[in-house]
Amino acid sequence: MARTQGSHAQITGPRIREAALHLFAEHGFAAVSMRQIAAKVGVQAGALYNYTPDKQALLFSLLKGHMDELLSAAPDQTTASPQDRLETFVKFHIEFHLQRHEAVFISYMELRNLTAENFEVIESLRRAYENRLETILRDGVAAGVFSVHDTKLTTMAIIAMLTGITTWYRDGGRLSADEVSATYCDMVRKAVGAL
Amino acid sequence: MARTQGSHAQITGPRIREAALHLFAEHGFAAVSMRQIAAKVGVQAGALYNYTPDKQALLFSLLKGHMDELLSAAPDQTTASPQDRLETFVKFHIEFHLQRHEAVFISYMELRNLTAENFEVIESLRRAYENRLETILRDGVAAGVFSVHDTKLTTMAIIAMLTGITTWYRDGGRLSADEVSATYCDMVRKAVGAL
Repeated sequence: MARTQGSHAQITGPRIREAALHLFAEHGFAAVSMRQIAAKVGVQAGALYNYTPDKQALLFSLLKGHMDELLSAAPDQTTASPQDRLETFVKFHIEFHLQRHEAVFISYMELRNLTAENFEVIESLRRAYENRLETILRDGVAAGVFSVHDTKLTTMAIIAMLTGITTWYRDGGRLSADEVSATYCDMVRKAVGAL
Repeated sequence: MARTQGSHAQITGPRIREAALHLFAEHGFAAVSMRQIAAKVGVQAGALYNYTPDKQALLFSLLKGHMDELLSAAPDQTTASPQDRLETFVKFHIEFHLQRHEAVFISYMELRNLTAENFEVIESLRRAYENRLETILRDGVAAGVFSVHDTKLTTMAIIAMLTGITTWYRDGGRLSADEVSATYCDMVRKAVGAL
């Protein structure tokens, strides 16, 4: 295909995001300069400003992109039983996050470097994601198939437990991702007292 | 009491550690200079080098101090039942970490900035702590009072679930620390199928 006029921006955008993600995860947002990001992409620092107004906008775009992708990929099958929806959610959460451990790392670590306004946007997207799980737990309690004392705390506990896998799991270890996922499904099912 | 010759070092050491912990948690290790740490303490940069050879040694000392304190404070009551030991462990873990959320944050975030040798020391202390919990789970399985598929994975899941509380819990919220702790104890008990 012939290159269109927009193709340079379309190719460079993802490369800038990938370079920034990697550098932020390795050194931390505050220690990385726009010049370093440009050098990693192989463009002049000035070229970066065609793509993003500043480093804060770049960080926000990475964190928001991660949350948007998460919310659009997350399963939303309201006709299945709460038990099945919970299992689907757990498997999805593990698979999605294991493939993105650098994004997970900076999404947690660099919240402190967002402006208050940007932080609020990311927080509300997080709450929207947490609500997906909490709705499953509430529906399970209402249907009498889950025994949960506090659906909000249980939501936070399950998400922390599952996301924690990204800090230690690497391909080629003692267990496959599917084995890990099955064991965590079993623990979550028991933790919510699923019938 | 009269000041002894060593008192300056004894007073400044904790202040240096506190300043470094706070600055590393706020900006990240790579973005903080020895000069900034000295300025926060109110001493010349040169005075810092009487206390620590370099920034790496300071980071290592903070992370190792945190783990040493954790291991010496952790309960070790082998005569109680596995169920009681698990509950004591969960309550201890939550209380200890809620009081130290900056240290928890840098202990996770700045592992990447340790030298390979220092990383190995911290990792082995972490494994020693994880082993305390795994031993309780194994004893419970052996006694037929816990139903756990994989004690190692369950250990990692419980620790991630409990430590995750530090990312959202603040005093004065909807629930007291004791209420949160009781709810998490209940979830952990169920997750390991405790009789």
